[in-house]
Amino acid sequence: MRILVTGFSGFVGSHFLEHLAVRDVDAEVVGISRTALPSHDGLPPHVRFRQSAVNMLDKAAIGEVLSSFRPTHVLHLAAYSSVGFSWQHPVESFTNNTNIFLNLLDQVRSLELDCRVLSVGSSEEYGPVRSEMLPLREDAALNPISPYAVARVAQELLSNVYVRGFGLDLIMTRSFNHIGARQREQFVVPSLAKQFVSMRASGQGRLTTGDREIVRDFVDVRDVVRAYFELLTRGTSGQIYNVCSGRGVSIDSVIARMQAQLGTNIELHTDPALVRPAENPVVIGSYEKLERELGWRPQIDLDESLRWILDWWQERLRDEAR
Amino acid sequence: MRILVTGFSGFVGSHFLEHLAVRDVDAEVVGISRTALPSHDGLPPHVRFRQSAVNMLDKAAIGEVLSSFRPTHVLHLAAYSSVGFSWQHPVESFTNNTNIFLNLLDQVRSLELDCRVLSVGSSEEYGPVRSEMLPLREDAALNPISPYAVARVAQELLSNVYVRGFGLDLIMTRSFNHIGARQREQFVVPSLAKQFVSMRASGQGRLTTGDREIVRDFVDVRDVVRAYFELLTRGTSGQIYNVCSGRGVSIDSVIARMQAQLGTNIELHTDPALVRPAENPVVIGSYEKLERELGWRPQIDLDESLRWILDWWQERLRDEAR
Repeated sequence: MRILVTGFSGFVGSHFLEHLAVRDVDAEVVGISRTALPSHDGLPPHVRFRQSAVNMLDKAAIGEVLSSFRPTHVLHLAAYSSVGFSWQHPVESFTNNTNIFLNLLDQVRSLELDCRVLSVGSSEEYGPVRSEMLPLREDAALNPISPYAVARVAQELLSNVYVRGFGLDLIMTRSFNHIGARQREQFVVPSLAKQFVSMRASGQGRLTTGDREIVRDFVDVRDVVRAYFELLTRGTSGQIYNVCSGRGVSIDSVIARMQAQLGTNIELHTDPALVRPAENPVVIGSYEKLERELGWRPQIDLDESLRWILDWWQERLRDEAR
Repeated sequence: MRILVTGFSGFVGSHFLEHLAVRDVDAEVVGISRTALPSHDGLPPHVRFRQSAVNMLDKAAIGEVLSSFRPTHVLHLAAYSSVGFSWQHPVESFTNNTNIFLNLLDQVRSLELDCRVLSVGSSEEYGPVRSEMLPLREDAALNPISPYAVARVAQELLSNVYVRGFGLDLIMTRSFNHIGARQREQFVVPSLAKQFVSMRASGQGRLTTGDREIVRDFVDVRDVVRAYFELLTRGTSGQIYNVCSGRGVSIDSVIARMQAQLGTNIELHTDPALVRPAENPVVIGSYEKLERELGWRPQIDLDESLRWILDWWQERLRDEAR
């Protein structure tokens, strides 16, 4: 396989590479990001990896990478995936989600590459839903209520056009909230983890959060990248798949689990600035389709994910303190 | 009223200005287009009009116009409205539909203008529909199957976010196929009219068309601009309205009506290159909502529209021949 991974420097890219390392696959991988990172160490010989700096708003630059590397598979991770950021910078969020994706697809089309593209979308596309629709299946109506969610729906609609109108080999996901080590602290779980770990170290402070009652479907990034690999290699072209844990957990519950693991009892405080203009109260997905078609189901328990995340932050803050 | 009209140099802009001329309204109008046209003559004193060249892909340039003119109303006509073009140039079509609109909305938001925006969308958003769904009402599901249609759906979804999330005063249309004098010949009715008129003059030739069995809801542009004026002044913020004739007419029927009006019997020929990759067979809209809320209904009969269009092409081709 020759796999192009866009947005490689983001949260998911390195986890995908680590997943390839444990699969029985011979893979040449090019990771592109706006700025290339230091090389990824410790890969086995069957995974050959290099990086390249590409701004995907520049369609010609994408074309150059595609035509020189000629991937057999593209994992499109590049995104501005923060809902909060999209409320503050709607234009920048939209262009760095939808337009970059359209540039990619249109280059795959015009270069006539024989290549499968996995388009990663978001559970945010579903928007607020009535409780009787839970867990969300892929045939549920889309109701995007943030600029980010609209960008993801537009990406999916464009994907459909490129499949049906131009015959591209393309698979779409609606991925629910991933969690794991190395996720940036703009997202809720790493933000909580970092705060808890530093407060435990200092023995003081109170925890600042947004709305703690919202319920999300948190799925471990290691389960996510396994799903992406299955979809890239065995998914059905033109189809949309939820990638989720199938279970809903409130932010309050995440906090309680972290406090239990760390043995802390830290005071909580809600920051109104972190409560978004229009928030979806409960999001839970169904992975029934992915399990039925590809036998995928999540394997990692929430407490195991949180332990991994807290450990990673402890190590990172210890390193920083040195 | 201070009305900013985007995409003024397109088909609808001048017709809107002519509609203002016959209304009891004091209007200052700025028309923006990528390239400013010669001035519009013959306006009454109560309509003061000027033009300005603005590339709406340049967000700052839109901001300058908005902050200096401070419109009370924006009629957003700017679009690359050809479905065929969108199949040939998907990226250019998308950016010149969705991104220009997002730039406009985001400037209205950040400048905190007290201003109503009319976002003109398209019947193409509905996509292919089962016959029992006809005529299409605004609550019908959207199923965009061309790059153009996706761009229009994205525009509408962004509109919803700016209404609900940012509190903008915004009304949306889904406008069906407009027809009238001065429409560019890339569109089917003017293309037919021009061909018929020139063939009648020369006494030879055969007519080249795409798929003649498709059925469309053709609405006279003079009815359309009247609807836009009613919506700008009296529509309900956040709502979506079909602007249509409520009747379906096949291309074959348009051709037969033109042949009857001109007294010709010209041979027909289908050009496969004009048949689009994924075509909607039948599109008919319902204007029940617009009639119920604002008392609007179409007033111009199809044969009257076609007569107007044929007359305009006869005059134009005569002028060109001089």
